[in-house]
Amino acid sequence: MSERDERHRKAMQTLKSRVDEKVAAADERRGQLLVFTGNGKGKTTAAWGTVTRALGYGYRVGVVQFIKGQWECGERNRLEDDHHLEVAIMATGFTWETQNRESDTQACREVWAEATRMLADPEVYLVVLDEITYMLKFGYLDIATVRQALENRPVEQTVIVTGRNAHRELQAMADTITEMTEVRHAFNAGLEARRGIDY
Amino acid sequence: MSERDERHRKAMQTLKSRVDEKVAAADERRGQLLVFTGNGKGKTTAAWGTVTRALGYGYRVGVVQFIKGQWECGERNRLEDDHHLEVAIMATGFTWETQNRESDTQACREVWAEATRMLADPEVYLVVLDEITYMLKFGYLDIATVRQALENRPVEQTVIVTGRNAHRELQAMADTITEMTEVRHAFNAGLEARRGIDY
Repeated sequence: MSERDERHRKAMQTLKSRVDEKVAAADERRGQLLVFTGNGKGKTTAAWGTVTRALGYGYRVGVVQFIKGQWECGERNRLEDDHHLEVAIMATGFTWETQNRESDTQACREVWAEATRMLADPEVYLVVLDEITYMLKFGYLDIATVRQALENRPVEQTVIVTGRNAHRELQAMADTITEMTEVRHAFNAGLEARRGIDY
Repeated sequence: MSERDERHRKAMQTLKSRVDEKVAAADERRGQLLVFTGNGKGKTTAAWGTVTRALGYGYRVGVVQFIKGQWECGERNRLEDDHHLEVAIMATGFTWETQNRESDTQACREVWAEATRMLADPEVYLVVLDEITYMLKFGYLDIATVRQALENRPVEQTVIVTGRNAHRELQAMADTITEMTEVRHAFNAGLEARRGIDY
């Protein structure tokens, strides 16, 4: 074995024992609260990636879409025939389309009722609360209501929250937080949103 | 309409016209290069979310997994029966498992050959080069080779690159870059990786 190969082998051996130690130390088993926030692309997309992953093992999954109601959605198209998946959609679309606080609040509370049902069901392994952060920001939902539903959920259930500016109380409760930071976005350089990539 | 509702309506109207202007300005149509990098959770997951999205419209998709060969993978389980999806896997697993630079380099070049075939095929709408950044870092692949394949790809093809520490030349070429910043990770607090969520 060459000297370079030997150095590589030793470095990888050290890395492997560090990883093994960390895996052995991580022995607490329960559902988690994940928050995907920040201004960059990939928050909802990572949530749908996890949905696909969970469905791949036959787990039941609930997705609640708080503001993308009137958009086409390739992920939903692809997975909606899976009887382990339930999708609840706030039907009125983006709030800057409707421009009506009262009807938006009503639409939000209706879809939140679906969310609370999923969050109380121990058969549901994963619940995605997609773009719920905006509901809190606009005051359509209050944080105490959301916190209570999250705290009382079944112990094995994982929840993913997505959206910009996640409420500090949500962040305080979270097991994992990823801030999707926008370094660059094609849209700002004049590239059109692409079907199957951006929506 | 109450004063608060009216203020809300005006704010949403302003937001909507800004969004409409940006959408109108973004009129360049071509495939894009997306880079999901950073230390946080969600890079590969967002790539699989996009795969699911593209498959939802019936597009052809190629995924090349550079280092997750020996892990179970819920997304692959869920989607592998889709005849629009092709997955190529570097079979030797994580490099800190094999600890052999020579055999890893060989395995990497074999799976890169699959990648170059996909990157030359105009029928493939989306190609994911999952964790390819490590191949560049470890010197299993050189950046000039990768850059050339990306530059010469079909104009309508989108490519997603994932992995920590994306090479600066990859970042320079990218249309969209999201840095997945780790704010907190459950694993570091002693929570076990969960099937269907983490893998």
